[in-house]
Amino acid sequence: MKIYLDNGATTMVDPEVVKAMEPYFTEKYGNASSSHMMGTWAKQALEESREFIAKTIGAKDDEVIFTSGGTESNNFAIKGVAFANKGKGKHIITTKIEHDCVLNSCKWLEEEGFEVTYLDVDKDGFVDPSKLEEAIRDDTILVSIIHGNNEIGTIQDLKKLGEICKKKGVYLHTDACQSYTKTDLNVKKQNVDLVTLNAHKIHGPKGVGVLYIREGVKITPLAHGGGHEFKMRSGTENIPGVVGFAKAAKLALNSKHIKHMRKLRDKLEAGLVEKIPEVLINGPKGEGRLCNNVNISFLYVEGEAIGGHLDAEGIASSTGSACSSKSLEPSHVLIAIGLKPEEAHGSLRLTLSRFTTEEEVDKAIEVLPKIIEKLRKMSPLGKLIKRMS
Amino acid sequence: MKIYLDNGATTMVDPEVVKAMEPYFTEKYGNASSSHMMGTWAKQALEESREFIAKTIGAKDDEVIFTSGGTESNNFAIKGVAFANKGKGKHIITTKIEHDCVLNSCKWLEEEGFEVTYLDVDKDGFVDPSKLEEAIRDDTILVSIIHGNNEIGTIQDLKKLGEICKKKGVYLHTDACQSYTKTDLNVKKQNVDLVTLNAHKIHGPKGVGVLYIREGVKITPLAHGGGHEFKMRSGTENIPGVVGFAKAAKLALNSKHIKHMRKLRDKLEAGLVEKIPEVLINGPKGEGRLCNNVNISFLYVEGEAIGGHLDAEGIASSTGSACSSKSLEPSHVLIAIGLKPEEAHGSLRLTLSRFTTEEEVDKAIEVLPKIIEKLRKMSPLGKLIKRMS
Repeated sequence: MKIYLDNGATTMVDPEVVKAMEPYFTEKYGNASSSHMMGTWAKQALEESREFIAKTIGAKDDEVIFTSGGTESNNFAIKGVAFANKGKGKHIITTKIEHDCVLNSCKWLEEEGFEVTYLDVDKDGFVDPSKLEEAIRDDTILVSIIHGNNEIGTIQDLKKLGEICKKKGVYLHTDACQSYTKTDLNVKKQNVDLVTLNAHKIHGPKGVGVLYIREGVKITPLAHGGGHEFKMRSGTENIPGVVGFAKAAKLALNSKHIKHMRKLRDKLEAGLVEKIPEVLINGPKGEGRLCNNVNISFLYVEGEAIGGHLDAEGIASSTGSACSSKSLEPSHVLIAIGLKPEEAHGSLRLTLSRFTTEEEVDKAIEVLPKIIEKLRKMSPLGKLIKRMS
Repeated sequence: MKIYLDNGATTMVDPEVVKAMEPYFTEKYGNASSSHMMGTWAKQALEESREFIAKTIGAKDDEVIFTSGGTESNNFAIKGVAFANKGKGKHIITTKIEHDCVLNSCKWLEEEGFEVTYLDVDKDGFVDPSKLEEAIRDDTILVSIIHGNNEIGTIQDLKKLGEICKKKGVYLHTDACQSYTKTDLNVKKQNVDLVTLNAHKIHGPKGVGVLYIREGVKITPLAHGGGHEFKMRSGTENIPGVVGFAKAAKLALNSKHIKHMRKLRDKLEAGLVEKIPEVLINGPKGEGRLCNNVNISFLYVEGEAIGGHLDAEGIASSTGSACSSKSLEPSHVLIAIGLKPEEAHGSLRLTLSRFTTEEEVDKAIEVLPKIIEKLRKMSPLGKLIKRMS
């Protein structure tokens, strides 16, 4: 694989991150709960990592709970708040463009007697704050809205949504796996009560995430046990993972990376739109969109087929989110922003990283038009359209 | 730290394991759900690791579900079976010597309306199979019994317990984190329905575990989401972790390691008993005990104080399990086998690994008697006893 444009699915671990993790595998390998020197070293690494990550989102140290990743954090936030607050109410609000782990946690809670409202979004994927306000009821206990959408890159106005939830006395959770380090995130300024982060989308290791839990939030642990992580998440702490996460955040938090990705993203999008007729750009334009996300529908062709041809050319891409890329259902996110199933099926997601080069983008702009042309020639629908035009 | 005798808390990652993991951080870093080549490499590594681990416990490949570790697997087994089978009944049986994550999952289920029976054990920590049989009721849905105890090393007769559960039509779950690769474990021969394994106790990485789920077992996922791991455990698979786990299992599964640890354990135990008066060996003798576990109570002194002095001499040990070593409560396991609180407080756990050398054991035998003598001289209780004798 030469050109990796699937950084929304996962990223290369930065070699500097691996280097930071290494001592914790074979030298400072103690259990952070142990009282001896080896335990103390582990504990110190854990707390320094926690302190750093807390600072990056404006949180206090003991509000940052390490987990095994974004899926666990999202399940923990939603189910944990649901179980702990069911005495107050059993209504939850989310949106139609959440990650599967949010939607499926909600669906499971529906089976367990909870009620869930799935908010619509506009054609660019934005939630209308006034619709959120209308949906909040006396028995609403939680609102969960994704910060930066994993498929179409829409960045919600968290601050506005947070103000509404604060005013109404309802917890706001946000899945910030895709947005963390790529746009502003501050739990105080944005009034967020629970935030999901993970490492492997920012050149950190897989298998480690964070759930920020604002002090005072009533929540039940998902993993009961030895009382680790302030009794919020039990299990021997993954010290190399946690150290790698903090290092990855440190390396990622640099506005020059955002500028770099945004510049290449804009070049890629403009290049494809210029060279390929009959395309739809899915998601918003400009700064309301994640700096590394391009999502385009190429009419009359299948995204799967485009991905396969790109793969043969050494370019990694994705159709919909990687988590559901084995599914042949059209993306629920693209359907939610109003695409027809056939338009959703023709979609391709290209996600950049700070390691993406201009040459790689140029190559994609060179290769993709040829693939689309070829596929459209083969497509019965494409031929039909051509005859009619 | 020079001498690490706390391998029951966690182990050094074998450098060969780190080497096996490395390519998956920076080269083959794809998401196993992605359709392109990078995804395929990840998927292949995942499935090869799964296949290997399945084989080691006599399971089918798709019965092995990767998780983030022992605590998650135990929570998943117990809560997952509880939620999926509550229509059949709400009674669970476990023992008084389980790991905190089993006990606290059960306690949480009690708050949610389940009923839990905590079986007694004998003075060596064994469950009486006839007592288990008596405890099973029509509404019993799950029995969860630890395979090799983390504190006193007792290895239960899983086969006998499994036969009873099978006869009664009740699922048997076992936490095999400490026993895996250290004694026989075969899900078919031993009639076990759910088994928890983890990597970091066998020189693999922290943050990765397994839940074996026998085909047909009714269980609800703990982590809902993209449908990974046969829809049983969602979340981007931790490929380096999984590869490291399989490599660790491969390196650990060698009977010469068991012989090595058993020989050193016996030498250590005999040496301490010979040199130090008034000690209690906690847990069974011989083959009914984990090959790497020594647990001794030194009367009239505090385990915490012994651990501190050992630490100053460069020897890592543990009092009770690491997970609760921050707690000053006497170990619930030692209380369950009949120790008085003061006997439990004087306990020390020394856990060996295949990397432990005879010189290290000799050093412990040399250093510990001096520490105990010194502490007993300082102890008011020790002085009192001396005056009376």
